[in-house]
Amino acid sequence: MPDRFEIVLPDWLRERVAEPISLATQDERMRFVVGLSAANVAHGTGGPFAAAVFESDGGRLVSVGVNEVASAGNSIAHAEMVAIALAEAAGGGYDLGASGEPAHELVASTEPCTMCLGAVVWSGVWRVVCAARDEDARHIGFDEGPKPADWVAALEARGIAVVRDVLRPDAVEVLEAYASAGGPIYNARQRGE
Amino acid sequence: MPDRFEIVLPDWLRERVAEPISLATQDERMRFVVGLSAANVAHGTGGPFAAAVFESDGGRLVSVGVNEVASAGNSIAHAEMVAIALAEAAGGGYDLGASGEPAHELVASTEPCTMCLGAVVWSGVWRVVCAARDEDARHIGFDEGPKPADWVAALEARGIAVVRDVLRPDAVEVLEAYASAGGPIYNARQRGE
Repeated sequence: MPDRFEIVLPDWLRERVAEPISLATQDERMRFVVGLSAANVAHGTGGPFAAAVFESDGGRLVSVGVNEVASAGNSIAHAEMVAIALAEAAGGGYDLGASGEPAHELVASTEPCTMCLGAVVWSGVWRVVCAARDEDARHIGFDEGPKPADWVAALEARGIAVVRDVLRPDAVEVLEAYASAGGPIYNARQRGE
Repeated sequence: MPDRFEIVLPDWLRERVAEPISLATQDERMRFVVGLSAANVAHGTGGPFAAAVFESDGGRLVSVGVNEVASAGNSIAHAEMVAIALAEAAGGGYDLGASGEPAHELVASTEPCTMCLGAVVWSGVWRVVCAARDEDARHIGFDEGPKPADWVAALEARGIAVVRDVLRPDAVEVLEAYASAGGPIYNARQRGE
């Protein structure tokens, strides 16, 4: 019986973040993340989704993640999960919002699925910035899971700001190109339906 | 910047599952899981939560998980997440419900939080068996996150059966003992409220 599992960033991504990166504006941060989502498809290392954790003030890049579900054989390896776990591994511990920590934000190429929505709450980030909407992911066949309809309000009630539609057309283009090229839509079965 | 993270079962748990285990009945499976939740507290390796994946027919234990958020410094290390990732690492790949796989079920000492609810959908398990209810976790101060009120129906609509209240008093006893002993209620901040 396995007693451990590991998730490792793809080689191309490790190389891309080998030097420190800081991005001042919201658009720059999102352009970087959407670029990772396209690169993940181009390199054949996973689905068309990427995420990153930044320090909100100053824009220091703390961690990155891409979808590695198929390549890692691990259904929890969504981009946001990888980015959150790596941000915590970077030194913040299990609560990026702990007293004394700089404010962190999660920048994601698509709005979070149910799992990642929950992970956002536990991570301690203070802001979530999204490009493509749930319906854009559903449009190409991905299921976002049983999310509460008022998920934005639910995050904001916990003091977590939500910014939507940042470079949405760019992210949608990546999703649509993936689908057009016949990229696998894993985990998309609506069982029993 | 970290390029990988790993989650490892605590030593006591690795020893406990060193030999193959099969448990025929639902109560036996839950007694085993609730026992792990109590042991996790007793060993000081995390919160009062445990989970396991079984083959539904025959009851072969496929994987186990306990809450390792504080010990691993990783907010995604909930018991269910660990058990799911390890079940997939055991050979099933990212979809435990794939064609040719035996039916798998997740047995959890407490109903899933938002994150784990989503993970259940993506994992491919066909059944979730729970002991303590959401409100039992909330009663000692843990937040279950923004779950849809109709989460049971949402799982069932995807063909995933939900069985609740199996040995609930036993699991509640573990939760209450943890709280009474002053166990840390991490990630419990209701920000902005």
